[in-house]
Amino acid sequence: MELLEQRIRKDGKVKSGDVLKVDSFLNHQMDVKLFAEIGLEFQRLFGAEGVTKILTVEASGIGIACITAQYFDVPVIFAKKNKTKNIAGDVYTSKVESFTHGKIYDIIVAKEFLLPTDRVLIIDDFLANGSALMGLIKLVSDAGAALVGAGIAVEKAFQPGGELVRSHGVRVESLAKVKSMSEETGVVFC
Amino acid sequence: MELLEQRIRKDGKVKSGDVLKVDSFLNHQMDVKLFAEIGLEFQRLFGAEGVTKILTVEASGIGIACITAQYFDVPVIFAKKNKTKNIAGDVYTSKVESFTHGKIYDIIVAKEFLLPTDRVLIIDDFLANGSALMGLIKLVSDAGAALVGAGIAVEKAFQPGGELVRSHGVRVESLAKVKSMSEETGVVFC
Repeated sequence: MELLEQRIRKDGKVKSGDVLKVDSFLNHQMDVKLFAEIGLEFQRLFGAEGVTKILTVEASGIGIACITAQYFDVPVIFAKKNKTKNIAGDVYTSKVESFTHGKIYDIIVAKEFLLPTDRVLIIDDFLANGSALMGLIKLVSDAGAALVGAGIAVEKAFQPGGELVRSHGVRVESLAKVKSMSEETGVVFC
Repeated sequence: MELLEQRIRKDGKVKSGDVLKVDSFLNHQMDVKLFAEIGLEFQRLFGAEGVTKILTVEASGIGIACITAQYFDVPVIFAKKNKTKNIAGDVYTSKVESFTHGKIYDIIVAKEFLLPTDRVLIIDDFLANGSALMGLIKLVSDAGAALVGAGIAVEKAFQPGGELVRSHGVRVESLAKVKSMSEETGVVFC
C-alpha cells in the first residue's frame, strides 16, 4: 500500500535493535484518516470472505481494528494481556512472548465472544517474530472458529514471523513489507 | 444518551463489588456502530471547541477515541501504561491507581505529541474513582496544552470521580450516568 509506505518513509524512524518507530501516526499518536485508508484496503482484500468478527490484541491494534470494522460492519474483540497468572472466568488463552519487552504474557478472550460459527479476521499493527499473531490464531482455533486470515499494517519481512505464520497455511496480508532497514539507508520495502 | 442507556439496560451485567460488566459491547467486544453514535454525540457536545487532539489511555478507551476522532478530524494519542519504572525518552508521566486491579502504575505520553498549542479532548470508556482521568488531566496540564473537557461513555455517578474532576473546573460530559445499581434492581440512571 503506497500511502502507508510513503508515510513510513516520511515519518518512520529507524532505531538500533531493528526498531522501527512509527509512533507519530500508528501506535502512540494515531492518524485515523490513514487508518480509514488501511481499513478500506483490508476490506478490499478480505471483503468477500464473510467475516463476522475482527480480533486484535491490546493496545496498539485496537485503533486500526475498530476503524477497519466499520467497513466490515462487524464487532471487534480485543484479546487482553494478562501478566498475572490469575485468569478469571471462562476464557481462551495463549502465551505470547514479547521480544521488545522480553516478557512472556498470557492473552485472553472470553469464550462467549468467539464462537464456532464465527469467521474471524485478525488485525494488528505489526508482524515481526509472529508470537502475538500465533497466539491470536490459537485463540481462534481453540474456539473452533474459522480463520479468514490476518491483516497487518507493517510486516518486518526480514524477521521470521511472516514465514512462520504463512507456513501454517494462514493468509497474511501486510500492507507495508519492510525488506530491510538501517539508520543509514532508511526503510527499504519488498 | 438514550441509546447507550438502553444498551446498558439490555446487555450490561451488575456484579458484586460495584462492577458493571459491559464487555459484550464496550470494553472487550466492541460494537463500532454504537461507538459511531457515541462519537457523534461527543462531536455535538464538543464540536465547537476547536479540538486539535483526542487523548485517551490504553486499552479500552482507544476504540471509542479513534471512532470519535473521525468526527473531529484530529489525531488520537493514547497514554501508555507503564508498570515498570523504566520510562525511556522525553515523556510526560502521571501516576494512576487502579481500584479494579489494586495497582499503581504510570501512564506516559511522548512530549512531542502533546503541545502547548493543542486543545485536548480526553475520551474514556469509564469514570468511577477518577484516578485515570486525573492522571490524563495532569499530562495535558504538564504539556501546557488547553483542556477542552472529558467525554466519558459511562460514569458511575455513585462513585467520587465525577465530582472530584468537576471540582477542578473540568467540563465532564458523561453519556450514561449510573445513579445506582444492584443485581436486584439492575442499573438506574440519573
